[in-house]
This record gives sequence, structure tokens and C-alpha cells, in this order.
Amino acid sequence: MYELTGTYTDQYQLTMAQVYFHNQGINQEVVFDYFFRKSPFEGGYTIFAGLDNVLDILANLKFNHKDIQFLKAQGFDKKFLEYLKDFKFNGNVYSSQEGDVVFPTRPILRVEGNIIEAQIVETLILNILNFQSLIATKASRIRYSSAERTLIDFGMRRAHSLGSYHASRAAIIGGFNASSHVTAGRDFEIPVSGTMAHSFIQSYDNEIDAFRDFAKYRPDDCVLLVDTYDTLKSGVPNAIKIAKEMEAKGNQLKGIRLDSGDLAYLAKKARKMFDDEGLAYVKIAASNQLDEYVIKSLLEQDAPIDVFGIGTSLVTGKPDAALDGVYKLAYSNGKARIKLSENKAKTTLPGKKQVYRLRNSQQNLIGADVVALEDEKDLKEMFHPFESDKSLKFEDCHKEPLLRKVMKSGKRLYESKSLSEIQEFSKNRLDELPIEYKRFDNPHIYKIGLSEKLMKLRNELIEQESKNKLK
Amino acid sequence: MYELTGTYTDQYQLTMAQVYFHNQGINQEVVFDYFFRKSPFEGGYTIFAGLDNVLDILANLKFNHKDIQFLKAQGFDKKFLEYLKDFKFNGNVYSSQEGDVVFPTRPILRVEGNIIEAQIVETLILNILNFQSLIATKASRIRYSSAERTLIDFGMRRAHSLGSYHASRAAIIGGFNASSHVTAGRDFEIPVSGTMAHSFIQSYDNEIDAFRDFAKYRPDDCVLLVDTYDTLKSGVPNAIKIAKEMEAKGNQLKGIRLDSGDLAYLAKKARKMFDDEGLAYVKIAASNQLDEYVIKSLLEQDAPIDVFGIGTSLVTGKPDAALDGVYKLAYSNGKARIKLSENKAKTTLPGKKQVYRLRNSQQNLIGADVVALEDEKDLKEMFHPFESDKSLKFEDCHKEPLLRKVMKSGKRLYESKSLSEIQEFSKNRLDELPIEYKRFDNPHIYKIGLSEKLMKLRNELIEQESKNKLK
Repeated sequence: MYELTGTYTDQYQLTMAQVYFHNQGINQEVVFDYFFRKSPFEGGYTIFAGLDNVLDILANLKFNHKDIQFLKAQGFDKKFLEYLKDFKFNGNVYSSQEGDVVFPTRPILRVEGNIIEAQIVETLILNILNFQSLIATKASRIRYSSAERTLIDFGMRRAHSLGSYHASRAAIIGGFNASSHVTAGRDFEIPVSGTMAHSFIQSYDNEIDAFRDFAKYRPDDCVLLVDTYDTLKSGVPNAIKIAKEMEAKGNQLKGIRLDSGDLAYLAKKARKMFDDEGLAYVKIAASNQLDEYVIKSLLEQDAPIDVFGIGTSLVTGKPDAALDGVYKLAYSNGKARIKLSENKAKTTLPGKKQVYRLRNSQQNLIGADVVALEDEKDLKEMFHPFESDKSLKFEDCHKEPLLRKVMKSGKRLYESKSLSEIQEFSKNRLDELPIEYKRFDNPHIYKIGLSEKLMKLRNELIEQESKNKLK
Repeated sequence: MYELTGTYTDQYQLTMAQVYFHNQGINQEVVFDYFFRKSPFEGGYTIFAGLDNVLDILANLKFNHKDIQFLKAQGFDKKFLEYLKDFKFNGNVYSSQEGDVVFPTRPILRVEGNIIEAQIVETLILNILNFQSLIATKASRIRYSSAERTLIDFGMRRAHSLGSYHASRAAIIGGFNASSHVTAGRDFEIPVSGTMAHSFIQSYDNEIDAFRDFAKYRPDDCVLLVDTYDTLKSGVPNAIKIAKEMEAKGNQLKGIRLDSGDLAYLAKKARKMFDDEGLAYVKIAASNQLDEYVIKSLLEQDAPIDVFGIGTSLVTGKPDAALDGVYKLAYSNGKARIKLSENKAKTTLPGKKQVYRLRNSQQNLIGADVVALEDEKDLKEMFHPFESDKSLKFEDCHKEPLLRKVMKSGKRLYESKSLSEIQEFSKNRLDELPIEYKRFDNPHIYKIGLSEKLMKLRNELIEQESKNKLK
């Protein structure tokens, strides 16, 4: 739906690209890693999302006429603009699978290409992956707290404008069942869901007339909003009347929705009113400022709610606003590169790397991924990234390589998976993770270690660069 | 750039629209009001933004072939789909001007049309206006704390995916000078800005070589990032060398950028180092997790920073995530309508309304807007919305009507204003507002009052509906 072009980037990428271009950057092979430093929501994991969109955009990226005219007016020179007219992303991409459970520090996606193309695509990669991973992670937390109940994304009106489109996609990856966002449903094959608003009832003179009319036109999918006037005195009694009228015609009222008041109290009362009338099949949906904590509390109170509609907190990733993913140079001109920082945790990992997930002989996760150089064999020990006296031996472990080549010379190597396949994969990966990593308060920390060779390379480069800076 | 179609909405709008369609909804004239209940960031005002985009979308809205096919698969019936194939928004829109300073409770935008079209467009109106108003308000707060300094939006990589596009636009309305977002710059005539990242310097063997190359290709717009190795021991001394080399060629180094460490301390030290070398013209830019509070603190410490680059907190509207704007039915079938709530502050204002801003005989704001029925004349007194014994007389005040007709039968009545005109208008409107409403802590509350007739109408409808719900 949304065609992004080469100008979907930060201006400095193009400013730098122009310099690279004039310095034969087209022959300068580089590697950039995408990774983040902290899982969102003070949680123990992150769900990686947005990959399929990124690969589609990279495969089709070009500068159109409007882009070139605009850049010309910005003072970019003629030769560089000629280059951009024919620009195509011809790089390779290695990546974790979309939907996988990922952790801080380790590379999640790696771009190999010439320095011009690899630099230009930085912003769009960050823009798409940071956001979708944030929302998929939020969705998975809401899924965790609501167990098997139906979850519907209602967030479009509070989402960040056009960001709503990818928010709804990411919510499904994280475990939601459906969305209210029709365009997202159309383009991503998301089940769409939605019935009525208060305005529908207000536009009639009486609640019962509004209910009756709705039931007439939606006999198979009728969910009545019961809180416009008074939930227990008006909404639920009227819904019961309609349910019986529907039964008389051979139909069934699907459910009611509560959108205000004390949801636990109202759900219990409403449930009993329906059950007393032999309408145990009528489901109860609830919405109104829900998040994983409110849902947890509602279920601890045994609120008989079957369906949750979640808006703002889901699609904005509240309270975190953003995942802190970055894209850092690891290799250039035949040399591994590093970015130092006074904060040791911010020093980058140099070189072309692979990441392995460790499982014991029973194929259970041991709670550690090891980052190694790509060509490294016979891994048997990993070291703490910042405290190199701490190490872990894993001789008998099975090592699953996590980065696979998904794009070669600008062409995708795999067909897109459907969103439900990605959701299923994500669920399976998360199911593997022991509960201590998933709890909301002080979750267990999943270990990320460095191979011996990677650690040595990093230490060498730190020493070298530290001398360099004093020159 | 982004073409939105009729499916850019919540599914329930279409579900309701189908019922309306079969009930002659095409002849049912309604009025919906857009308003919000609380200014973001615990602040004293909101900047209204996004109107121009909304009007453009409404003027061109249609359901395309893909939309119709998708809705058919969802079970919408043939006659309704035939109607959607030819759908066009033919309503009227009344609105505050984009960039105006607005306050809770009062209508900001009003849609008049048949109930089908007015309902379908609800979600896109909320999606665009809520977000852009949030970001424009955040930007205006950052502008307020940084006085006349240059402000650049660096947020694209942390923005909510495609929402970045409108975030950059709204940032300009709120008072920013430029953005790094090239597509937004291209489409909204925003000055774009950006020079170099750490990766540029890392891709060279030495910082000075990287600086020199950059200066060679950007002699007129050279800003050097000085914190890759060591700001004061390496970055600034190297930048001074380059500045002198540039002078020898008749050019000037434009500035340096600090992106880590103690910005106040580093800016002071760097400023002195440049000044001591006769390079007082070199500007200092700073970035790294800035917001209105950090900037306020930096300037209270007299940090000599000329340019601020602001990312995450700006484009995500941190910490608020969303503006709580809603779209409520006020009139239908020839009758004023109301939505009750147990929370009196959530009871809506019925009828077709106008809003007036009051100024005294010296044309100064008195700190109050009054909401009245559209046809009401001779306003002299306003009443507190929830405590009707509190009133304010304003006989000698000038009354500026705030809602003007901007769309008639689906056609725009005014040409789009340029973004810089909207920014200028917004600045003038905010300049009028006394400082007590703009401070960050416990700002003065701007009064919103109801006219006598509106108050009476509301009270009548409350009484009527309260009886209704007990039927």
C-alpha cells in the first residue's frame, strides 16, 4: 500500500553517501549490524518483527523523479544524482527469523553491501524494525497475561497516524487474534473485527430499537454495546430481549461489549443475568484502557470476560514509546571495525558474526545465545561481554545458527511467510522459553556471550582505537 | 505520497454503515464533533495539527477495487458494496485553523453529512488529528524551553514506522526549524538537515581523514561529529585543524555536533577551545536523548549550544503516547443528541455549536473560550460546564468565532497554507497566550464555558435521557 522510496531516510545518510560516492565507495564493502541494547517494558525478551516489510522495501527501493528533483534543489551534485537515478539495493541481508524471541546486544540483522547502499537503508531498517518489534513484544505480553482469550487490536484511532498500519501487523505476530484496522486486514490477511459504537445507539431514540436493527442486519455476527445508558439496568436487559428474539428466528446473539465502569463487577453481573436466562453462549467482550496489567488483574478477580479489545497501550507500545535499536558498522575495507564508548556496554561487536542458540541434549534452551565470528568452528565456551573473567562452557550443547541469508545481491531468497505462520513460529519460540524469562517483574536475564575469538578481536580493537584517539 | 482509501478505518464503522445504508441513512443528517478531554504532557494548551492532511484525504476518499474485494470476502452485502464503489465524502467540515492553540472539551472540528459518510471517516480523522496535535504540542514545548535556538527533528529512526512522516510535519507546526526526514521534506517543503554519523568516521582509519574528506565535499555545510573517539582530546582539536584548513581555502567550518557525555560541560569546554583559536563563528550542535526538560536544564547551566537535535521524545510524544481526542455524535435526524456518562465531565455537548475566543477591549485574551449554539446571538455570560452556579460575564469582550467552514459538500473551500504559514500562525496565537498557561508545572487552566442556551439544552437532554434509560 505505501510505496517508500530512497528518500525515506535521514538526510545525513545521503550527505555521507555523496562523499562515499566520490571516494569510490561503490567498491568499499561494509557490514552493518542491527541490534538493540535493552528489551522494552523492563521485560526479559523481545519479539523480532518487521522483517518481511523491510525485505520487500529493500528489493524495490529506488529514487523516483520527485526524489531526484528534491535532492537537486538541496544542492546534491549532478554525478551523484545520476548514480541515485539508477540506484538499486544490491546488498546481502542475514537475519533472525521474523517472530523469533531475541535479546539485547547480539546482532539480529546484518547488512552487507557497498558503503553507499548500506548507509542509505539504515534509517528505514531502524524505522520499521524498531517499531514493529516494540509492538509485537507488547502484544506478546498482553497475550501472556490473558492466556487463551480472544484479543482484538482496537488501536487505530490512537496509533501514530500511518504507523497504525504496521502496528496492527505486529500485534498479530505477538499473538493477537484480530484487528479493527481494515486496510491492514486487507493487505496482511489479518482477521478484521468490529461491531458497533455508542454513536450507533445514540442515533436512535431508544437503545432497544438500535439493538434490534443491528441484529436484523448482522444475525451471524451481532455484538451489542451495552453501556450507552446504564449497563445493568438497560443495556444487558435489552440485550437479553434481543437474544431471545434472535433465538425465535433461529439465530444466536454472539456477545455484548462493556466499555466503561468496573469491568470485573459488570462482567460478573452480566454473566449471571445471561446465564439465568439460559444464554450461557453469549460472550462478554471488554474494552477501555486495557493493558497487560489490567487484564491480569481482571482475570485474578475471575472476571468472566471472553474477549479483550486493546487500543492505545498496544499500538503505542506504552509506556516505552520506542525500542532503542541501532545499526552499527562492524566491518569495512577488509577490516573489522569497532565503536568505542565511555560506557563499556555501548562498545560495539566487530566483524562478520553469527549467533547460536544453545540447547542441551534434551533440546531444552539453556538460556544463552553465543555470538561468534562467522567462520569460527568448534565453539565450546562463551564469555561475558563486559566481564571477561566470567565464562560458560557448553561442549555438549546443540548450537542453532540464528542468522540466515535472506537476501542475496538485492534479491529475496525466501517467499514471504503468511502472518499466521509467523505468529505460530513466534508462539513456538516463546513457548520454549522458561516462565522466569517471561514474568513482568524482574525477569530472569537471558545470557548473551562472546566466543573466544570474538572477544580477542574486540579487545585488540579496543586497544588499537584507544591508542588511535590519543594521536 | 501515501494514498489512503475508504478501508483506512475501523471495521465497526463499516458494519454500522451497512445498517445505516439499509435504513435510508443516506437521508439521515448528522453532526459529529472532534474534541479532546485533556491537554497532553499535563500542559496548559494543545496545538491543533493535521487538518490540511485530513481535508485532502476526505476530498479524495474512495474505495478501490482491492477494498471492495476484501469487503466482499468479509460478507458485506452486494447493495452496500455497490454504494461503496461510488462512495464519495460529500459532507461539510467546520474547523479551528490548523496551528491554533486549543483547549479541552470544546469542539475543534465538526463534520456534517449523512450518517454513513460521517461515520466512515471517524477513524481517519482521529488517527491523523490526535497524533499530529500530540507532536505539534510536544514540539511547541521544546520550542518554548529552547527560546530562539535552532531545533532539528532527528526522530525518524525511533518514530512509529510510517507515522514518522506526519511527525516531522507536526514538529514544524510546533516550531521546529528543520527535519532529517527527506521524504517529509520533499512533500511538505520542510527544510532538511543532516551531516554525518559515527559510521562515517569509523569507516576511515583516522578521525582527521574522515573530517578532511567531509569538508572537501561539503565546504558550505560542514558540521563535524566530534565524539567518536574522545570529544575534547581528539574530536575538537581535529575539528579546529579542519576549520583552519577550510579558512585557508576561503571557507568556514559551520559547526560541530556533540552526541554523548555531559553536554553542558563539553559544550563549554569546546566553545572555549574554538574561541581561543579565533573560531567564534563555529556553532555547537547537541543531540542525545533531549527533551524540553533536558534543554531547559542545559540552558540554565549556560551551555553554549546553538542547535538542538531531538529524536525519540519529540516524534513519539513521550511520555504521553497519545492525545485522547474523540468524535462524538451531537445531532441526528433533526435533534440534538447527547452521550451520558457516570463521569459528568465525559457527558458530551449536544447540538450544532460555534466556539468564541474572548478578548478584552485592549484585544488581550481574557483566558476563556465560550461554546454556544451555532445560531445564538448576543452572548454575554458563560457557565462552568459542570458547576452551573459558576458563571462569567463578558459583555464588552470581542468574540472571535473559531470554527469556520473549510469543506462544503466534500470540496475544500480554501487552498492549503504552506507549513511555514501554519507555523507562523501558530506562533502568533501562542504568543498571545500569557506565560502562566505555558509553564510546565501546574499551568493556569484556560476556561471553557457554555452559553446559557447550550447549558439549558444539555440539562434538558440529560433529564430526558436519564428517564429514557429507566424505561
